[in-house]
Amino acid sequence: MKKLSIRTRVLTGAVAAAALGAGTLGVASASAGQTDTPAAPAAVQADTQNRNLAQTTVLTTEAATRAAQAALDAATKAGQRVTVAVVDRDGITRVLLKGDGAGPQSPQSAERKAFTAVSWNAPTSELVKRLAQTPNLKDIPGTLFLAGGAPVQAKGAPIAGIGVAGAPSGDLDEQFAQAGVAALGK
Amino acid sequence: MKKLSIRTRVLTGAVAAAALGAGTLGVASASAGQTDTPAAPAAVQADTQNRNLAQTTVLTTEAATRAAQAALDAATKAGQRVTVAVVDRDGITRVLLKGDGAGPQSPQSAERKAFTAVSWNAPTSELVKRLAQTPNLKDIPGTLFLAGGAPVQAKGAPIAGIGVAGAPSGDLDEQFAQAGVAALGK
Amino acid sequence: MKKLSIRTRVLTGAVAAAALGAGTLGVASASAGQTDTPAAPAAVQADTQNRNLAQTTVLTTEAATRAAQAALDAATKAGQRVTVAVVDRDGITRVLLKGDGAGPQSPQSAERKAFTAVSWNAPTSELVKRLAQTPNLKDIPGTLFLAGGAPVQAKGAPIAGIGVAGAPSGDLDEQFAQAGVAALGK
Amino acid sequence: MKKLSIRTRVLTGAVAAAALGAGTLGVASASAGQTDTPAAPAAVQADTQNRNLAQTTVLTTEAATRAAQAALDAATKAGQRVTVAVVDRDGITRVLLKGDGAGPQSPQSAERKAFTAVSWNAPTSELVKRLAQTPNLKDIPGTLFLAGGAPVQAKGAPIAGIGVAGAPSGDLDEQFAQAGVAALGK
Amino acid sequence: MKKLSIRTRVLTGAVAAAALGAGTLGVASASAGQTDTPAAPAAVQADTQNRNLAQTTVLTTEAATRAAQAALDAATKAGQRVTVAVVDRDGITRVLLKGDGAGPQSPQSAERKAFTAVSWNAPTSELVKRLAQTPNLKDIPGTLFLAGGAPVQAKGAPIAGIGVAGAPSGDLDEQFAQAGVAALGK
Amino acid sequence: MKKLSIRTRVLTGAVAAAALGAGTLGVASASAGQTDTPAAPAAVQADTQNRNLAQTTVLTTEAATRAAQAALDAATKAGQRVTVAVVDRDGITRVLLKGDGAGPQSPQSAERKAFTAVSWNAPTSELVKRLAQTPNLKDIPGTLFLAGGAPVQAKGAPIAGIGVAGAPSGDLDEQFAQAGVAALGK
Amino acid sequence: MKKLSIRTRVLTGAVAAAALGAGTLGVASASAGQTDTPAAPAAVQADTQNRNLAQTTVLTTEAATRAAQAALDAATKAGQRVTVAVVDRDGITRVLLKGDGAGPQSPQSAERKAFTAVSWNAPTSELVKRLAQTPNLKDIPGTLFLAGGAPVQAKGAPIAGIGVAGAPSGDLDEQFAQAGVAALGK
Amino acid sequence: MKKLSIRTRVLTGAVAAAALGAGTLGVASASAGQTDTPAAPAAVQADTQNRNLAQTTVLTTEAATRAAQAALDAATKAGQRVTVAVVDRDGITRVLLKGDGAGPQSPQSAERKAFTAVSWNAPTSELVKRLAQTPNLKDIPGTLFLAGGAPVQAKGAPIAGIGVAGAPSGDLDEQFAQAGVAALGK
Repeated sequence: MKKLSIRTRVLTGAVAAAALGAGTLGVASASAGQTDTPAAPAAVQADTQNRNLAQTTVLTTEAATRAAQAALDAATKAGQRVTVAVVDRDGITRVLLKGDGAGPQSPQSAERKAFTAVSWNAPTSELVKRLAQTPNLKDIPGTLFLAGGAPVQAKGAPIAGIGVAGAPSGDLDEQFAQAGVAALGK
Repeated sequence: MKKLSIRTRVLTGAVAAAALGAGTLGVASASAGQTDTPAAPAAVQADTQNRNLAQTTVLTTEAATRAAQAALDAATKAGQRVTVAVVDRDGITRVLLKGDGAGPQSPQSAERKAFTAVSWNAPTSELVKRLAQTPNLKDIPGTLFLAGGAPVQAKGAPIAGIGVAGAPSGDLDEQFAQAGVAALGK
Repeated sequence: MKKLSIRTRVLTGAVAAAALGAGTLGVASASAGQTDTPAAPAAVQADTQNRNLAQTTVLTTEAATRAAQAALDAATKAGQRVTVAVVDRDGITRVLLKGDGAGPQSPQSAERKAFTAVSWNAPTSELVKRLAQTPNLKDIPGTLFLAGGAPVQAKGAPIAGIGVAGAPSGDLDEQFAQAGVAALGK
Repeated sequence: MKKLSIRTRVLTGAVAAAALGAGTLGVASASAGQTDTPAAPAAVQADTQNRNLAQTTVLTTEAATRAAQAALDAATKAGQRVTVAVVDRDGITRVLLKGDGAGPQSPQSAERKAFTAVSWNAPTSELVKRLAQTPNLKDIPGTLFLAGGAPVQAKGAPIAGIGVAGAPSGDLDEQFAQAGVAALGK
Repeated sequence: MKKLSIRTRVLTGAVAAAALGAGTLGVASASAGQTDTPAAPAAVQADTQNRNLAQTTVLTTEAATRAAQAALDAATKAGQRVTVAVVDRDGITRVLLKGDGAGPQSPQSAERKAFTAVSWNAPTSELVKRLAQTPNLKDIPGTLFLAGGAPVQAKGAPIAGIGVAGAPSGDLDEQFAQAGVAALGK
Repeated sequence: MKKLSIRTRVLTGAVAAAALGAGTLGVASASAGQTDTPAAPAAVQADTQNRNLAQTTVLTTEAATRAAQAALDAATKAGQRVTVAVVDRDGITRVLLKGDGAGPQSPQSAERKAFTAVSWNAPTSELVKRLAQTPNLKDIPGTLFLAGGAPVQAKGAPIAGIGVAGAPSGDLDEQFAQAGVAALGK
Repeated sequence: MKKLSIRTRVLTGAVAAAALGAGTLGVASASAGQTDTPAAPAAVQADTQNRNLAQTTVLTTEAATRAAQAALDAATKAGQRVTVAVVDRDGITRVLLKGDGAGPQSPQSAERKAFTAVSWNAPTSELVKRLAQTPNLKDIPGTLFLAGGAPVQAKGAPIAGIGVAGAPSGDLDEQFAQAGVAALGK
Repeated sequence: MKKLSIRTRVLTGAVAAAALGAGTLGVASASAGQTDTPAAPAAVQADTQNRNLAQTTVLTTEAATRAAQAALDAATKAGQRVTVAVVDRDGITRVLLKGDGAGPQSPQSAERKAFTAVSWNAPTSELVKRLAQTPNLKDIPGTLFLAGGAPVQAKGAPIAGIGVAGAPSGDLDEQFAQAGVAALGK
């Protein structure tokens, strides 16, 4: 029964995570940038009725669209032309909005920032700093270590990433991405 | 001065097209499915102030988003789980909305249907019929000859494509795509 | 408030699906092969505490590994050398086991069969038949219309796909894939 | 009516840009290299007759060919063997001329330089300098941060990029690219 | 000395081909469509001063550009919006001209038609017919079996291919491609 | 101890295969084309000193080169210009020889034919026939169902594939590939 | 007979390697990190009965699965959510286990770490150090120079690689990978 | 007649190059590493009988195979397990020999080194030094800036590249590549 006990550990861990992770959906906490923190509790929870199954928390399309639109609105208000992407925890694009006049590099840039943010559960502006210690992190396929990506969390676990690209600085891009995250709390 | 005369012909043609193409933004006409029709007048118009430039008509992001949302709403109302894509005349994705529960095959399927519709300026349900005569059309990279794609036209020229994928039949997908096109006329 | 009402419809639909889908994890039912059936209820459920979130049902890694091993064991017992893949509802590979002596074509073949089965919630042997009516379905990227893929369902919704490749016939491959599905019910 | 107001802002911004951008087609100004400048006004303008549409300014094929030929001529006159690419604002190649004896690396290099120049509306020799501050910009797919790319602007907005590759230094490549841009002003 | 004798055979064959191939640069002859004809004599000739070397005949960039422009002119004159590609015997694109208003599918389509024509030294309208006997030829990567591609020959050997895409029928596309070939004979 | 017993079955099967497979390296037998034959015994054998290991039989580079050269020689003697590829049981190219004047489509075509032959342990001319019953086999990535590929076997198991492409018919290509296989028996 | 003598050298070398390589399956030795060491003796041995053949040592699927499971167990015990990959000496994935809640970047990261470890027969934590001297090693396609990969050796030769990704530091990932290697010695 | 004069310049340049380039096939000269040298005279020469055509010098397959075998022999003699690639001036692989026991990273590494050497007509050990001045050269697709690549020249122009990968240092790899070049002079 070794394998079952493994599974049990997994589930126990998940339940513990759920218990610890009392926070609600929100902006990544400042501590997310620490390299040696234990992995963020994933948004996976045991299904008490079937040992084969677990429940994963995801954004609805409606929420993802609302967040993306809010990010785009923030950029437009600031006079910037950007693309916004929202990816889920599997790195799959849920919503993409390429704004009027956004550059041809912006869609892939936005998707990769979102992918990076959800992968490490931290804003990409924080993740860039980790390269000082581990420069080759940026060679992992699908990632982009440029400010402009922000994770969406549920109970502390990353469930989506919002990426923005096209503004003249990554800090602006990330400000718009955070506006997208913030729209989920309204 | 041979080259200049070429340019002149192009522009003349475009102006003529504009004159002929009195129609407004709308659903592809039934005749779009005919293989031997001269190429649809492109949405390119001479810039009278600079001989190097032309003007191309594009959907705004706001309009593309509205169309995509309308297509997704139509699918949701019908109890179907789909992905909707809007691509521009260059085949670049402007908006992507992956609906709740839409299958993993649906994003690429939707994008390719949209790409196919805007390439030939016809609904993909019409384009499928052309394969009877020219079966290898479907080997052109980026295309997908399945019902579910609809072109968006301005003055008869294709300026965008809307693709929907995920419903149990392509006819349903295309009905939702057409709902997206229709939303532009409201 | 139009968008919120959309979201409500989605969630209502999901709840209804959950109510209807009283079945437990199991082999795809025979009716799965019908083209015009409404889309299978996705394994997405409203989160009653946060309108932005939904819950998705997934296989645990332990269960996915157990299913893959069971499929490989069935093939080995039959003297066949195969690769087994288990993909989730997003089409992402959860488990891959390339058996001893399995051919070089078998990993991609297994992954694509699994992808195809989970995309349409039906065994690929059934899906092959749909090509008679809609031959270009097989041009959707990532798919492979060959027997050997089986969906894993929870309450009628597809949550994973198991693909097997390498045996001299697809029917054998699918028999092994179904052995993998069956192992989840033990 | 929130969304319409968004659209209005976009269009207002574009009109303002048009008013400000009194410059004609020309070489990127020196200030293009500044990282924190607001995004260049895109070559998108409101369509006063249909709120869904905007007008984008593009190079004609005749002009793009003339520019590419001029760049190639300049290289040939200097005894250099190069490839020249002209891409539009969507990053799509409009013209490619692979010169006699140009190396196998030159086509992709030329296309990427052109893509990079049109993406940030600056010569790539300027853009290389931005890497001192933001080194990972160069990880954005499709880009190449080597001298040799020059943007083509209409009223200050980037509408195309010209990339040259194959000369022994990027400065030479860029000199030829600028000769291509200059040919548009004759 | 076995290997040297092999080389000798190669060179002898090439010399013989040169002797036989008295024809000048021109349109592919009708017999090019025959499947069982010995391979066309390649444009490779022994270098009498160094046994390691051979001479290959290629189009100059000037000639390739002239041919492409002629094809584009022919299409424009006929009111069609197309992309024209010229590839060399290695399948590498030498010239690409994407015409005003040509569809997004046309660049890859044109390049593949050109690639296919130069690979088999026959117009693609002829090559399509070969699929009746060998349908899977069209699965070779890089090919496209649609009318619109024409080979350029020197002494009977294929040295380039011209592909045109975007007109409402492949026959029209090929007529323009042949106009491009014809321009080389003027 | 279930897993160990699985392993034991594998190894037993492999030993049995070795016992049965008394044949030496040679051309694929005619029966290789049968679809329902049990999978060919793989060239994998238990390592009697370590239960974790198995021994796989591979061609030496010297032998693979000799076979490829023999295939190329046969083509040259017949006046054909081809590319020859030898891939191992993992589908990895061991040797590639692109002959003088071979077309640009021939390298990928040769590699895929070799890949296909070693995957199903049969000449591709035989495998083409299987498509009558299972047409979508040809959609498996990396394969090409055209005559011209031949498996290399050791004790009945496929250990390599030789693919030839470029002759005017696949039958000729395959004749050259078989000449390559035959060279291994000398 | 020059080529035969080459072959003889190869085989002699291999036999010598076998004689020297008396070690058993185990963790990469410390000296593996030295850049100038002669290449590790490959797990290839002459076949005394057929000069065309050699024997390669590979992990059985059972062993690869056991190692992967052990690595995943170690990560789970440490509260980390990771993906584990085992690749063979050809770089082909034999086993992939994506753990519950592992990030979307982890599968490719794990596969590349495993690929890198088996390519240079050293833990990736050692290989990272080599970049100080040869920074561009990391540009070789398929590699990833991040701690977390460990080679599996047979008689000193690399026969597989185990890669782990997803923990907050590469050192943790590699500790789990080494746990996978260790499980092969039990 | 401007274009004809352009062509004339090209041809004149080529003839001049031929006159200057009296050297025979050989190792790249030391000066090849200088960044600001005018581009190497390409191996393209005017065809005096047809203004559309030029002659390109290429290696015969026999010569390319001989060079590759010599490089592999040199590596084997040194006890190293490597892959050798020979690419032509278009960057297309002419010969690939994956040696016994060569690592999975070696084929792509060898091809890219060869590609890089022929692109800049210098040994890759020299080209690496250029990165000190122009670090982003290494971002050009298809290149690899690691020692181990050597150009093959005819009259000073690059006509092929030989790449070797797999030895514990790039210097060794390049020594073997140079042995391949040297074999062409025998």
